[in-house]
Amino acid sequence: MRIALLLEYDGRNFCGSQYQVGVRTVQADLESALATLARGPVTAVFSGRTDTGVHARGQVVHFDWSDENVDIWRLGWSLNGILGEDVSVRALQVVDDSFHARFSALSRQYVYRILNRPQRSALLRRTHYFVPHELDFDSMMNAAKCLVGEHDFSAFKSSNSDKVSSVCRVSRAELLKLGEGVLEFWIASNHFVYNMVRIIVGTLTQIGLGKIHTEAVEEALSGKSRHLAGPTAPPWGLCLDSVKYPDVYRLFASGAWTENEEEAGRS
Amino acid sequence: MRIALLLEYDGRNFCGSQYQVGVRTVQADLESALATLARGPVTAVFSGRTDTGVHARGQVVHFDWSDENVDIWRLGWSLNGILGEDVSVRALQVVDDSFHARFSALSRQYVYRILNRPQRSALLRRTHYFVPHELDFDSMMNAAKCLVGEHDFSAFKSSNSDKVSSVCRVSRAELLKLGEGVLEFWIASNHFVYNMVRIIVGTLTQIGLGKIHTEAVEEALSGKSRHLAGPTAPPWGLCLDSVKYPDVYRLFASGAWTENEEEAGRS
Repeated sequence: MRIALLLEYDGRNFCGSQYQVGVRTVQADLESALATLARGPVTAVFSGRTDTGVHARGQVVHFDWSDENVDIWRLGWSLNGILGEDVSVRALQVVDDSFHARFSALSRQYVYRILNRPQRSALLRRTHYFVPHELDFDSMMNAAKCLVGEHDFSAFKSSNSDKVSSVCRVSRAELLKLGEGVLEFWIASNHFVYNMVRIIVGTLTQIGLGKIHTEAVEEALSGKSRHLAGPTAPPWGLCLDSVKYPDVYRLFASGAWTENEEEAGRS
Repeated sequence: MRIALLLEYDGRNFCGSQYQVGVRTVQADLESALATLARGPVTAVFSGRTDTGVHARGQVVHFDWSDENVDIWRLGWSLNGILGEDVSVRALQVVDDSFHARFSALSRQYVYRILNRPQRSALLRRTHYFVPHELDFDSMMNAAKCLVGEHDFSAFKSSNSDKVSSVCRVSRAELLKLGEGVLEFWIASNHFVYNMVRIIVGTLTQIGLGKIHTEAVEEALSGKSRHLAGPTAPPWGLCLDSVKYPDVYRLFASGAWTENEEEAGRS
């Protein structure tokens, strides 16, 4: 029986999502919690990896569970009882065996948060990239517009990344001004190359500071060379917001409270 | 020369704002940073105390500075260089000697954040009170309305509190629904009794859960007895948002960026 899981985590104390020997990762924590409940090893497949320090509000994971009679809601509560306070299971759902967290994904959406004010913030230091010099919002917004569509993002890829295609179809690239110096950059794409969002944000920030011109994003896209883009923005501003799958899976579509009331009625 | 300071802090690792021997407090950290720069003791007067674990986005503090030629902006940057990452100075301003952070304050505004969804959150765990059972927003909102106006808040005061007046003039008491299960309770008053906001939120939560009826807030106000109100909600959902002073002081009224550019031009 295949189960899909909606996962939230504070990336600060993790060396990324993907399993690595000898360090704390989200995958290792989740697989260890699952193994405790399954009394045997369970492999958790993530929609995609997130780097050290990157957060997730809506990471999607799937795993196979041998006990067909498992109470899915009880499993969620049990996992949240075992997992550390910086990882939480938001929802669980039995899915068709054809579902694959990584290969079934149609697109992923990230948000990158910037705090733009003269002095640093004690409260937003873990989730926002602090930029103390004034950013020109309009020029950043204009530069971001040309990201939408299908482009080769070779210029926005860290040099040590895999030899996979750098062509991505970006369906959303939007900069929002939330007040009190908070900016949010939202980006959705069918595919992301390594460090893409952070390099885009680093480039937009240079544009906002007036250090490079607004056309730099367009030039980097056509020039396809990493040196044409800006620096990589820090990981803690980045959050994997959500992953989109074909409607046929109706993933996490039912209202949370209906589910909770079912659980309340059952226990 | 009197200086007013706008302070932000993450209350989690502090035993409250007010100085106490042998534990970490916001006042002790700030006074120690000021003493380093002044090369002698400096007393920081806070607008009011916040409890262990309570956050502040806009705490106001004043202190007297002997060097009349101090560069106020440089002082701010220096303080932020010395203070830990969970305290930050947002703004500084030279004020008239008649200004007193506590006694000149006209009103204070707090916000209390609740997360109401079935499963806990890894990302909001430090700033939101997690309530896993569904809350009836409308009945909570209706109950909150009767808090506005001048009332005796004896029922919403922790029993170990000082013998000061319990009469408060509440100018705002509003519950907001922000989506994704996040609720915010905003309250502004000329005066707050000990633990008042947390006991009000504890009472509203009981109403939202259907454990007590909507009239309970009104009955507690007229009955004036602590046992008529609900439990004290946890500290980490609470944040001192802002403190209001007479317009004559024009406190932190100038735009932050103008100030920053002045600084940039000067250094």
